Parts: sequence; structure tokens; C-alpha cells
Amino acid sequence: MVASFSAQDHQWMAQAIGLARQGLYSTDPNPRVGCVIVRDDEVVGTGAHLKAGEPHAEVHALRVAGDRAQGAVAYVTLEPCSHHGKTPPCAEALVKAGVARVVCAMQDPNPLVAGRGLSLLQRAGIETASGLLEGEARALNPGFICRMEHGRPYTRLKLAASLDGRTAMQSGESQWITGAAARADVQRLRARSSAILTGVDTVLIDDASLTVRASEIGLPDADAARAAACQPLRVVVDSRLRLPVSTRMLNLSGDTLIATACSENAPAAIALSAAGARVVSLPGNDGRVDLSALLTWLAEHAQCNELLIECGATLAGAALRAGLVDELVLYLAPTLLGSSARPLFNLPLEQMAQQYRLQLTDTRQLGDDLRLTLSCRQDND
Amino acid sequence: MVASFSAQDHQWMAQAIGLARQGLYSTDPNPRVGCVIVRDDEVVGTGAHLKAGEPHAEVHALRVAGDRAQGAVAYVTLEPCSHHGKTPPCAEALVKAGVARVVCAMQDPNPLVAGRGLSLLQRAGIETASGLLEGEARALNPGFICRMEHGRPYTRLKLAASLDGRTAMQSGESQWITGAAARADVQRLRARSSAILTGVDTVLIDDASLTVRASEIGLPDADAARAAACQPLRVVVDSRLRLPVSTRMLNLSGDTLIATACSENAPAAIALSAAGARVVSLPGNDGRVDLSALLTWLAEHAQCNELLIECGATLAGAALRAGLVDELVLYLAPTLLGSSARPLFNLPLEQMAQQYRLQLTDTRQLGDDLRLTLSCRQDND
Repeated sequence: MVASFSAQDHQWMAQAIGLARQGLYSTDPNPRVGCVIVRDDEVVGTGAHLKAGEPHAEVHALRVAGDRAQGAVAYVTLEPCSHHGKTPPCAEALVKAGVARVVCAMQDPNPLVAGRGLSLLQRAGIETASGLLEGEARALNPGFICRMEHGRPYTRLKLAASLDGRTAMQSGESQWITGAAARADVQRLRARSSAILTGVDTVLIDDASLTVRASEIGLPDADAARAAACQPLRVVVDSRLRLPVSTRMLNLSGDTLIATACSENAPAAIALSAAGARVVSLPGNDGRVDLSALLTWLAEHAQCNELLIECGATLAGAALRAGLVDELVLYLAPTLLGSSARPLFNLPLEQMAQQYRLQLTDTRQLGDDLRLTLSCRQDND
Repeated sequence: MVASFSAQDHQWMAQAIGLARQGLYSTDPNPRVGCVIVRDDEVVGTGAHLKAGEPHAEVHALRVAGDRAQGAVAYVTLEPCSHHGKTPPCAEALVKAGVARVVCAMQDPNPLVAGRGLSLLQRAGIETASGLLEGEARALNPGFICRMEHGRPYTRLKLAASLDGRTAMQSGESQWITGAAARADVQRLRARSSAILTGVDTVLIDDASLTVRASEIGLPDADAARAAACQPLRVVVDSRLRLPVSTRMLNLSGDTLIATACSENAPAAIALSAAGARVVSLPGNDGRVDLSALLTWLAEHAQCNELLIECGATLAGAALRAGLVDELVLYLAPTLLGSSARPLFNLPLEQMAQQYRLQLTDTRQLGDDLRLTLSCRQDND
């Protein structure tokens, strides 16, 4: 049965989605969720989940509503949870508060619990409906959903290039292809990600920090501070453990994970661990870390929802060929770096039939640069 | 003294600019011009120049207005001409018709006659003003203006590439990177151009026709027919006269010009001339045609206003390096062709300081593809 929703249902769910966005940079590993409680056509409570371990959106909204939740309608961007985690189940809280109806944008994407929250509510005599603005709600949490549904993070590959598809001069010189607005946008991409993955060569060349920097993110001060307070995990693919212990990122706030095909007991591994990194030995192909295994590991052991890959042509080509890239975020600067400059991807193809066709989902101007967002439907995989 | 214009002045000049666009595909080598005649706040005549040798915009508009031109205001997108060409001077026609005021968007860009039309009108006691919507009026005629001001055509370089900046596989296979909407747009670019320039290798590989095809241009039938009726001059840079006499384009409607560094009396030149081409010998650098000399020749001898370059990486790189490209029109398809595919430009650069920074002036989605228009301000030239 397809539920039917009124214009006002849409309006309030849209408000709940707006609230959920408040958690864009801080709810990890939890999903971003918003809630609006309405009685007699009046909003009596609103809430957003902001941080794991702290109250869920429904609890915030119920607290604001107080007695007025009795007989009200609750709009939630995600099915209320039915299990005891760090906080008590929200479905029970809604029952206790006496709401008459619960409208969800989407069911829980975890196949083990999907539908349980709604069932609990229904058994308590509460009217339920699901699927209102589901596309918008799914877009809030691509990573959480992908992890629950597929056991791996939602993976964005971020690249910055010239119009002729070059990321750096042959020498490696690349600062700066894009302008400040594009670089701030990259900071926001980092901040919404659970982890940032790169290759050891990129770290060796640039001694990149891969941190979120409040001063560069282009958000209001409080949001910028909150974003920088929870640094994404830095993941360096270093199959042969070439990273020196003096690497800058090992001394920055946030954690660094080194994925290697060497043993965790190798002297280099022990030295890097002593320097503060976590070293994880993963199955390899020809001595190189299996990227697919790494992504599975990140979902399972690091609860990684959204993964941002920032890397050179070799790792970018490998990730693409392995079918691991969900989305390509390409910053295009209005410049030409010429035919000896470095390519976007190491990706040797012979025929047009082998091309990787993507789907353009968004185009935006950022200062002098363009940001293209593309969905990687790799039909030729 | 800066002229002051009313909101109604703007409205009527905007209408005149809209009329001028009717000639986008057909006025060559003349400029596109529109005219609106207004009396007592009522439009009493409109006209556009459509074809060289036929009446100018002002004459069309005056004919429509008849006696009502007496005491009226004429809005013209270009200063009325004062010289006897294929048609009598429009400034005299306006005087004879008894208009009270003439407002131009811009003066004649030909430095030899600029201001003469306005002077003629002023001497006849007509109030004149110039500079209303001048930017929009200049955009109608970039080629005519460039030819008058600089003695060379306004040059667009059109390229179609993948996101990774590749125009074809290594083998040359390239059909089709972009979709039908982008290819129709290229047809319209061709149709508004006086000439299309390419390299002999492109013709040898593709046996390209470089024609305007009414069936593919995506315009209403009458406009499509009119556009296809005046084929742009096809210009092949063929320094060593390698083009075979069997080349397809020599048998298509429209003219083909072959620019060579060989003598016009060489046997190959005589054979190509016999096959219908015009062969022009130009000064060369290291046996290769000097592109700057070719552009000057095209402006002087072929009255070439807008020149479209459609070529491979070698000629594209040479034109860019020579500073001859005014505008880059880049069709970007949402695909990746890989790192062994052919680059946009043969353009070996060593350092970021040598990059060619361009200015993005327009972004448009065409089907699945993007069209980026960039002004080539080559600050590092």
C-alpha cells in the first residue's frame, strides 16, 4: 500500500530534513536525523541528532514538546530505533509520549532492524507511514546507508584538475590549481567524511595533513569549530610501509591508520605504531593492499560511513577500476596545464567501448572554478 | 559626456538586439544589426539585416514605419552607415525619413568610419546618442568587430573531450564522445562562423566534411535552411599539400581553401585547384604555415568575421601558443577515456607559472554533456 501524504506532511518533513543537516559534520558514526512534532497544525517540538552518545532527534523534539506531544504527529527523517544502544530506543519514547502518528522519510537501512521501530509503534496503536521525501532523506546519509546495506563506506573520489584533465605538472608542482572557494569546499567534504584515504606517495610528496581546518572551512564559527573537533580518520595506503615516522600527520589531532600488505610485526610497523599510527595488515594483490578489503575493513572496524579519497593518478585509477568509487567530485579550474602534466587517472584504455561513462548529478561554480559531481555508474564493469 | 538613457530606451534597444539575432547565421560578411522605430511610445517599425546585398536593418524598419518615422526615435544596434556600399547609406535614409533622434548601441568599429554616421545625423539636426546596451551589441558581432579593430577574425577553438581531457583513443577512435545535443550545438557554432579551420591530419583521418547540415542543427526549418544555404569557408592547413584530390569536402557545397607553405604552382597545388579548392601559399615557419599570417589573410581576403577552429591536439596547441585563440568552447562529456587517450592540446609546459589561465564566461548543460565557454586571456603571453 502506498501511503498518501498531504502538502503539510511534505512541509514538515522538509523541515525535519533541514534539521537533520545540522548534524552533517558531527553525528559520525550515527546517521544525520531530524524530527518535527506537530499538534493541531502547530509545530510543538523540533530536534536534530548532533553527536553520537547524545540524544537522538526524537528525544530532543519530545523534550521541547513536553505534554503537547500527546496526540501529536512526529515527522522523523529515519525510522525511530527500537534497540537499546548508547541511548534508549526512540520508538519507546514516542509511545510513552503518546503521539498519535509517526511519519518517517525512510526505514532503517540496517536489514537486521528495518521495520522494527515501525512495528513497535504500530503494536502500541500508533498510526505509521514511511517513504515521505525518501530520496532527500537518503541523500542525507549516503554513507550510513551504504555501510548498512553493502558493508562498505560510500566512497567519494575528489580530484582537482585543469580543463585539460591534469592535476599537477610533471614535477609534481600543483599549488594551486583551484582557488580558495574550491579549497574551502574540499574542507567541507573532508568534514562530512568519516575517513580520508590517500596513497603513501601523496603523503611522501606533499607531507599532506588531510585535516579539517576550522579557519579554512567557510562555515560559521560554531559550526567550523564543531567540524574541526571531530577529525576524520586519516587512512594511508602504504603497502610496503615506506611512510617515515617523522610524517607530519602523525602529530596532528585525529587518528592515522596505515593499511599495509606487510606484517603488523614488521619493524617499520612497530615504529609507526610507536609514533602514534594504527597499522593494519590486509590481504594484498601482488604485494599491494586490496582496496576492496580495506573498504570492508573500514566499514566493519572503523564504522566508516563516508570515505573521501584524495590521491594521485595511480590510486585513483585503481579505485575506479576496482569499481569502488560511488561518486566523483571533480574541481575544474579554468586553466590549461599542458600535455606533459600529470593525468587524473592512471587508466590505460584501448577502445571507446572501455570508457567509464558517469552521470553528472550537479554542476556548481565556486569562485573561478567549477565543481562537477558525478555518479559512477560503471556500466562497463 | 555620458548619455543618459531611460528604461524605455533600454527596452527598445533590447528589442533591436533581439531582431539583430535573426541574422546570426546569414549576414556574413556584414554585421548582425537590428532596428526599432518608436513614435509616441509606440513601435512603428522594426527591421533586421538578414543578408549582405539586401537592405540594412534601418531601411527595413523605415519602410514599415512609412510616414510615422517623422519625428520618431530610431534605436539601432550599430551606428548607421554613412558610406555608399552595396546599398545607400542608412544615415541619409534616416535623415530623409525625418526621424528626430537616433540611439545606437555602439559606434562603427571600423576606425576609418567610426562616428561618421552620427556626425551626418547631427549635422542634419538629429539628436544622437550612443552606448546603450553596448556590451550586448558587441556580443552580437565579435567577429566583425575583431576584423575591423584588429584585422583578424574572432577565433573560437572548439574541442570535445572527456572529463579527463581526452579527445580520442590513441587509435583515433572518437565517435561519439558527446551526445546529439552537443553535436547540434557545434552545427550552430559552424553556421554562425565565416570559416572553419582544421588541420590536414584531421581531414586525412576522418575525411570530415565540416559542413553545416540543416537536418542536424536543431533550428526551425526555415532558419536551418537559411543557415545551410551559406556554408562557411572550409580552411585546411596543409603545409606540405598532402590532401588528396579525392577528399570528400572538395565535392560538397561551399568553398574549400587550402593554406600551404608550398608554392601555388606545385603540381599538388595545381591538382587541388583543378579539383575545386583554392590553394593559397603563405609564409611559413620551418615549412609550416604561419597561423597568424593565415588569420590576417582570412580577414583581408575572405572577409572572415568569426573563425571556428576544429582540429587535433597539434594545431590546437599551436594556435593557443601563438595567442590566436579568443575563445575556447569546450564540450565535456561525462566519461573517462583514460591516460593513453589523446590529449586536448600538444602543449608541453614545465612549470605552473607557464599555465594558460582562461576566464569561464558560460556553462551550459546540453543533454548529458556540459559546454564551457572560456575567454582566452593569456596573461602569461
